[in-house]
Amino acid sequence: MVGVKKKIRIGMIGYQFMGKAHSHAYRDLPFYFDDAPLIPELKVIAGRNEEAVKQAQEQMGWESYETDWRKVIERDDIDVIDIVTPNHTHAEIAIAAAEAGKHIMTEKPLALTVEESKRMLEAVQKHGVKHMVCHNYRYAPAVQFAKKLIDEGKIGRIYHFRANYLQDFIMDPSFPLVWRLKKEVSGSGALGDIGAHSIDLARFLVGEIEEVTAMMDTFIKERPIGEMTGGLSAQGDAQEMGEVTVDDAVAILARFENGTMGTFEATRFAGGNRNKNKFEINGEKGSIRWDMENMNNLELYLAEDRDGEQGFRLIHCTDEAHPYAANYWPSGHIIGYEHTFINLVDEFFRGIAEDYQPTPNFEDGVRNQIILEAVEKSAEEKRWVSIDKI
Amino acid sequence: MVGVKKKIRIGMIGYQFMGKAHSHAYRDLPFYFDDAPLIPELKVIAGRNEEAVKQAQEQMGWESYETDWRKVIERDDIDVIDIVTPNHTHAEIAIAAAEAGKHIMTEKPLALTVEESKRMLEAVQKHGVKHMVCHNYRYAPAVQFAKKLIDEGKIGRIYHFRANYLQDFIMDPSFPLVWRLKKEVSGSGALGDIGAHSIDLARFLVGEIEEVTAMMDTFIKERPIGEMTGGLSAQGDAQEMGEVTVDDAVAILARFENGTMGTFEATRFAGGNRNKNKFEINGEKGSIRWDMENMNNLELYLAEDRDGEQGFRLIHCTDEAHPYAANYWPSGHIIGYEHTFINLVDEFFRGIAEDYQPTPNFEDGVRNQIILEAVEKSAEEKRWVSIDKI
Amino acid sequence: MVGVKKKIRIGMIGYQFMGKAHSHAYRDLPFYFDDAPLIPELKVIAGRNEEAVKQAQEQMGWESYETDWRKVIERDDIDVIDIVTPNHTHAEIAIAAAEAGKHIMTEKPLALTVEESKRMLEAVQKHGVKHMVCHNYRYAPAVQFAKKLIDEGKIGRIYHFRANYLQDFIMDPSFPLVWRLKKEVSGSGALGDIGAHSIDLARFLVGEIEEVTAMMDTFIKERPIGEMTGGLSAQGDAQEMGEVTVDDAVAILARFENGTMGTFEATRFAGGNRNKNKFEINGEKGSIRWDMENMNNLELYLAEDRDGEQGFRLIHCTDEAHPYAANYWPSGHIIGYEHTFINLVDEFFRGIAEDYQPTPNFEDGVRNQIILEAVEKSAEEKRWVSIDKI
Amino acid sequence: MVGVKKKIRIGMIGYQFMGKAHSHAYRDLPFYFDDAPLIPELKVIAGRNEEAVKQAQEQMGWESYETDWRKVIERDDIDVIDIVTPNHTHAEIAIAAAEAGKHIMTEKPLALTVEESKRMLEAVQKHGVKHMVCHNYRYAPAVQFAKKLIDEGKIGRIYHFRANYLQDFIMDPSFPLVWRLKKEVSGSGALGDIGAHSIDLARFLVGEIEEVTAMMDTFIKERPIGEMTGGLSAQGDAQEMGEVTVDDAVAILARFENGTMGTFEATRFAGGNRNKNKFEINGEKGSIRWDMENMNNLELYLAEDRDGEQGFRLIHCTDEAHPYAANYWPSGHIIGYEHTFINLVDEFFRGIAEDYQPTPNFEDGVRNQIILEAVEKSAEEKRWVSIDKI
Repeated sequence: MVGVKKKIRIGMIGYQFMGKAHSHAYRDLPFYFDDAPLIPELKVIAGRNEEAVKQAQEQMGWESYETDWRKVIERDDIDVIDIVTPNHTHAEIAIAAAEAGKHIMTEKPLALTVEESKRMLEAVQKHGVKHMVCHNYRYAPAVQFAKKLIDEGKIGRIYHFRANYLQDFIMDPSFPLVWRLKKEVSGSGALGDIGAHSIDLARFLVGEIEEVTAMMDTFIKERPIGEMTGGLSAQGDAQEMGEVTVDDAVAILARFENGTMGTFEATRFAGGNRNKNKFEINGEKGSIRWDMENMNNLELYLAEDRDGEQGFRLIHCTDEAHPYAANYWPSGHIIGYEHTFINLVDEFFRGIAEDYQPTPNFEDGVRNQIILEAVEKSAEEKRWVSIDKI
Repeated sequence: MVGVKKKIRIGMIGYQFMGKAHSHAYRDLPFYFDDAPLIPELKVIAGRNEEAVKQAQEQMGWESYETDWRKVIERDDIDVIDIVTPNHTHAEIAIAAAEAGKHIMTEKPLALTVEESKRMLEAVQKHGVKHMVCHNYRYAPAVQFAKKLIDEGKIGRIYHFRANYLQDFIMDPSFPLVWRLKKEVSGSGALGDIGAHSIDLARFLVGEIEEVTAMMDTFIKERPIGEMTGGLSAQGDAQEMGEVTVDDAVAILARFENGTMGTFEATRFAGGNRNKNKFEINGEKGSIRWDMENMNNLELYLAEDRDGEQGFRLIHCTDEAHPYAANYWPSGHIIGYEHTFINLVDEFFRGIAEDYQPTPNFEDGVRNQIILEAVEKSAEEKRWVSIDKI
Repeated sequence: MVGVKKKIRIGMIGYQFMGKAHSHAYRDLPFYFDDAPLIPELKVIAGRNEEAVKQAQEQMGWESYETDWRKVIERDDIDVIDIVTPNHTHAEIAIAAAEAGKHIMTEKPLALTVEESKRMLEAVQKHGVKHMVCHNYRYAPAVQFAKKLIDEGKIGRIYHFRANYLQDFIMDPSFPLVWRLKKEVSGSGALGDIGAHSIDLARFLVGEIEEVTAMMDTFIKERPIGEMTGGLSAQGDAQEMGEVTVDDAVAILARFENGTMGTFEATRFAGGNRNKNKFEINGEKGSIRWDMENMNNLELYLAEDRDGEQGFRLIHCTDEAHPYAANYWPSGHIIGYEHTFINLVDEFFRGIAEDYQPTPNFEDGVRNQIILEAVEKSAEEKRWVSIDKI
Repeated sequence: MVGVKKKIRIGMIGYQFMGKAHSHAYRDLPFYFDDAPLIPELKVIAGRNEEAVKQAQEQMGWESYETDWRKVIERDDIDVIDIVTPNHTHAEIAIAAAEAGKHIMTEKPLALTVEESKRMLEAVQKHGVKHMVCHNYRYAPAVQFAKKLIDEGKIGRIYHFRANYLQDFIMDPSFPLVWRLKKEVSGSGALGDIGAHSIDLARFLVGEIEEVTAMMDTFIKERPIGEMTGGLSAQGDAQEMGEVTVDDAVAILARFENGTMGTFEATRFAGGNRNKNKFEINGEKGSIRWDMENMNNLELYLAEDRDGEQGFRLIHCTDEAHPYAANYWPSGHIIGYEHTFINLVDEFFRGIAEDYQPTPNFEDGVRNQIILEAVEKSAEEKRWVSIDKI
């Protein structure tokens, strides 16, 4: 009975690309999940630009807006703070929210530095609030199904994890110097923005990384200073140029604690790859492939199949047997990017309702951040870096 | 400014699979379309089973419910009647709605017979209401983009249209005798349920069909009498058996008015094809392929490409250059089945707001129905049937 | 021991595209098949154009040449006559070869008419020679493997056979009026040239066809009169035009004796499809897909796979478990078009050596021809035609 | 005129997997290349096991055999020595052949060590013979076409080269300790056997590598001592075990001299990947993908394509516009693995006939070997290694 369900009241800080994804997830959750334990109420959205935040509030269906994020945290009628602002602001907001006893959802990467991220983790642990970092790709049904197969031992000991996260949206040299290209705001470039997702998938599916060595590069070193929008597309003003202070691309070799060999590549300079977030896992009994651009599909190879009948199966993860599929449409009717957020939000609220700590959370965020830092260090010093030395 | 936008008040008759798809579209429309001229209000949902409709009302966010559809039509505070009931009820409800001056959205096929569908068209024309038939696949961005390419002459004169709509959800002989398998309720089987979609795509992209010849078959002639649910999955009670009175599969040869050769196949007995709604168009200057199971992709071949560089391009129709893409996510972040409904509903409300008749509408529904009837006749009489003889 | 193996002496009539394919197969057979019972000797090749046939003889490694095919048949040192001339000459040559007691390999289609083909069959039967029609696609390892799966009952009762043979090499209106476009030489166009292959695959994999209805069209009705080469590419002289007297495209509905619904489409006007010879078979327990353009792959769907793990397997038919794979390269190292001929020739010689009649043979050729004629008749008279009425 | 063409007389040392591939190429070359300047004569094949080499001689059509390779080199009637023996014998044979004034074709990797390979290069240079290392994948038509596109500037400055060479043939722990798994015979494992191919493709398509860092692993450290066959499949005797002394897998980060970021992975533990030799190149104006398992296809993305029409083109490299395609079959009729050798051999003989040094040759072999050694060193010492320091 939806009518008598408990509500959970959300305050969101930020309102751009990720703000849209999160807002939509809150709106859609009760529609698709008839067993959702908590029904989100979109109470307030905050942003510094009043006109913009007001428009976002109306467009996305929030009850009210604020131009000072601290006011949101101060409000008594808010249970959850959702942080979708640029990365350099996560720590301050999250710590304040924890201190105010709010549960916290935040975008990734958790913070700019390991030190920051650890302070955030301490804060949420100290104040006993639930916390989540929005590595949404974990919540693609095909990825959840891959996890299930791995946990069941279906592919056995894992030999290889191979991830590529390829984009091309900044290849044009006239693409402006948005905040994602400035280290002081974003922490890093392709590494933290998209590589962090691959790292999260690796940790989710394979386990912890022990050491890394990496190379990073910035192919286009200066760009026109443009609007600091949060969107992925923007037009720069070609007259004034500024320095790109983050990586355009990163490639990583990794050794996992369980012996798996890992390779990662994250780049924004892979033409034709709009959002090619893909991985392949090779285990002793089988292999798994996934690609976000066709995210409903999972490729599965099982060595146990009869001789001659072996081959990668193209599984359309929309059958009732697949995670989350029953919440949406009949078999063969695909879902998209936004549904990864709905699934993740569902898990978040279940954690709150049933009092367990869902994943990926700030602990995952800290571990992810440590790996990001190890990667940067290894690239800078041109050597292998142990994760436990960070 | 969302706040001052005009509202449009919806009453929905029916609440199952299609009810879910339409309800979701109304909810999501204002979120994604900041220029939507009308904001839907989900006023009332109707169904005969009170418990079920009440649950649907709460789950999907309708303000109220009714158990008698006539009450919905009688209400003054309803602008649009949306009909998502089994096919045999469309005519009566639509005609009553038209007489009450309501705009009408209805599921496909429009009706059970051509005669019924023509009466429906007369009614909406007489009462001057807007009307639409929910051939949602037209509104996949990739299909809209295909239409644009064809209209621009990009592939030239069309030689071939080749459509397969393949499903497998009733292959198990223990799947029950749901309403979709009873002629008196659904009109036909694979033909009207899925073949009708291919026919609509053909008419949209290529033009009118002149004549057809077809074969139809029912592979499993008796099934356990089960729940008459509207869903696609159900469990039959194996004890009592009933006759399947619709086609399991249909194959059609068609000649279009413009000379295009057409082939169609619709079946629910194509194992492994969960919802393989696909087509290929071959024109003098290029070819186009589309497949609903990976609906964001369009394959495009252009003969004009340089020698050696010719090949089908796999276009991910999520760039800003693609229809509707700007409403959703950045390039490479896919959308799914449900978005076809949002796009279609957007067009419907624009038609109402700007006073033009959107497509596909009841006229398309009548033409589609004529083709369905010609197909059935040709299969029965084992001969070619001219469309204009129906 | 290759050295002491029995030889088999070949005389080939014709020397163009198919002459090349067959010659190569004879040359390669003993290299790849260490258990080949007979080692072909390329004794003589015949053609009317002395310069051309002499060049072919040298290029392809034949011992001698003739300009009169009758001389080849008269020779005592020839065991096999291989006919790769245009279709209208098959009957006369084959009958003469049979009367001379030669085994016969011939290109498809067997003849121009059913009557001709039946006379050919009578001749080979009367004279007790082995005979084969070169439907080479049967001998792709993936197709042989598909046959094995079907015979094992792996996909159960077959509901659908769906074949497309799509080419685009004559789409340019300036492509000349080669012999393949003249009815008196080739019998038919896309139908007999490529559709006949699909029909052969259907008969091989599914069974006999009971009745058909079809549509045919010639999109470009006049073409420049050009060189009557046997090759697929040619340049016409735009000054004089001649009538195209064969079909550019054909689409067929078929009912098989075992109840399978069949659809066929063969066209030379499907831009971007260079040689897309593909089929899909849907059975009660599984489905199979194949496409000549990636002929080493077979897609296999098995309904018996565990829920959630179902999907089309992309099988690379180069494992030792696959037919003929052990003759070639290690797993994953693909073979190509020409290997289908080597495999077929191997079967032919085994039939001769072990005194059994291999398939596809003239009986298959007659049955194929009957279907071609039924298709033409059905297209002309716009009605269903029973195969047993031809 | 084939008849009067000059002959070139081949002596082959070794007769297993690669012996078969090379022998076939020599046999097929004159058949497919009517402009071949030299016609190979298969004079003599050598191997230590008389029974085996005799069988190979007969099966593959060599005129004679020897059990001592030195006898082949001593013969006056031999122009070319082709070395297809295990890697540890390449140097001795090649140097002897050079001293005898023979042109040399050898399998890759050129040698076990850089030092060996340099001595080989010195020998061929000193004696003025032509030399080639059989990196056959360069000669896949699609790869040659990729090279042409890159040289034309079609994809602009290259940012990324990403290669995976994935196999799975030794994943079963009972697979025996064949020579490819023993360092003293093969030099290295996945690195030299398959990684060397990727490195060659990288050098061919992108340019020279400046520095590398790598990780290597041997997942199965002991295996049953089995037949030292050259084939890829073998059965071990499970009773006695021996140590695997080469890598099962290697992953590499590389910096090219032109700034390209490179990643390489070569493994024999990637289940379901039979021979997945693939790469992707991302340039400022476009991207290219290739995969040996479907080697006739090339994927090409061009940023210059009109907005909305951008996408990877699946080019079937069998059109006349594609390298080598005219030598084989009409468009759409694929070729396979063995044709890469025919094309390479054609280039080799052209070099001999026209007196230029074809590539890839011993210089490429040395450079490849240097990279292999740098990779091993970097993996061992866990640091970046400059190529010019080797």
